[in-house]
Amino acid sequence: MRQRSSVMPIVTVQQGPRSVELKRELVRQITDALVDAYRIPAETVQVWIQEVPTDSWGAAGTLTADK
Amino acid sequence: MRQRSSVMPIVTVQQGPRSVELKRELVRQITDALVDAYRIPAETVQVWIQEVPTDSWGAAGTLTADK
Amino acid sequence: MRQRSSVMPIVTVQQGPRSVELKRELVRQITDALVDAYRIPAETVQVWIQEVPTDSWGAAGTLTADK
Amino acid sequence: MRQRSSVMPIVTVQQGPRSVELKRELVRQITDALVDAYRIPAETVQVWIQEVPTDSWGAAGTLTADK
Amino acid sequence: MRQRSSVMPIVTVQQGPRSVELKRELVRQITDALVDAYRIPAETVQVWIQEVPTDSWGAAGTLTADK
Amino acid sequence: MRQRSSVMPIVTVQQGPRSVELKRELVRQITDALVDAYRIPAETVQVWIQEVPTDSWGAAGTLTADK
Repeated sequence: MRQRSSVMPIVTVQQGPRSVELKRELVRQITDALVDAYRIPAETVQVWIQEVPTDSWGAAGTLTADK
Repeated sequence: MRQRSSVMPIVTVQQGPRSVELKRELVRQITDALVDAYRIPAETVQVWIQEVPTDSWGAAGTLTADK
Repeated sequence: MRQRSSVMPIVTVQQGPRSVELKRELVRQITDALVDAYRIPAETVQVWIQEVPTDSWGAAGTLTADK
Repeated sequence: MRQRSSVMPIVTVQQGPRSVELKRELVRQITDALVDAYRIPAETVQVWIQEVPTDSWGAAGTLTADK
Repeated sequence: MRQRSSVMPIVTVQQGPRSVELKRELVRQITDALVDAYRIPAETVQVWIQEVPTDSWGAAGTLTADK
Repeated sequence: MRQRSSVMPIVTVQQGPRSVELKRELVRQITDALVDAYRIPAETVQVWIQEVPTDSWGAAGTLTADK
């Protein structure tokens, strides 16, 4: 228990909208990345995807929706 | 003023979708927790709930929607 | 390249819902603020707006939707 | 398992620096708040405190360190 | 009160370390950006700067500290 | 340009302190995960690690430092 709770990383991804298939694949691959890099069990890894619509996010001063 | 602005904690909760009744109760109880633990006025506490759909969040490499 | 990657700030705004016009203006003005304050190119600045509905966010222990 | 992973909320608190005693109390009380409001086991709740020094945080346009 | 609590945006900036002078200027300018774009009082705006050391942040797969 | 700015995901990892070697490996592997899952260029991926000391983070109501 002690061991486990000291290794629970939380991953949050901010991104534009994507399909469930792509998100499923991302959660799988990011979890593998944590397992490989940190040698921790997959069960200790959580991945949260914050999807932001293109009219709520921008780079270089311009909304992505306007590009 | 000085006092107040030095004590304004921001609480963000990442969670799956829940009803308004549950969220209302959570905001009330988390605010009480801050008031009790830190001896600060309730007005200085903000609680933000980031609801993430089950197809955008997973543990152990699997989307919650697939469990 | 080296220079650039060392200056890419990420700005996240947590707020209640607002119109596209207001968000467009905000992304433009926050990017200008970064460019002015840090003397960095606008292309290195990203702004993400996390809109939270009024039933998922509160202050002083009360949901904004109930005020 | 299925049940559990669907209820693991992550709480992040942004605040100025505080003592370990106060943070210990806060983690305990916020966890209780989640347990009470959502009827979930305490083991499913994680609390992360992001302490920000007073020269990196401000309200009303002024750094807290300057107030 | 009602009005005010419905307009309190929280701005979080993730960035590499910078001097107090630059952060002071940034908090001032970002607050002005919010005031201008959203026509809200400066007192309702909070800015939090999360400084991340160069060995804890990277782009293109490489830690900034290694560039 | 249009293409690129529409695909820049931001990954934030909340975790306990770890060595530079481990963080270097994590940034590399998470970036690979994004590149593989989303078919995007590595240059568009940013990874930010928020290290939280064990006295500022807990699970099950107990600070990690006390476990």
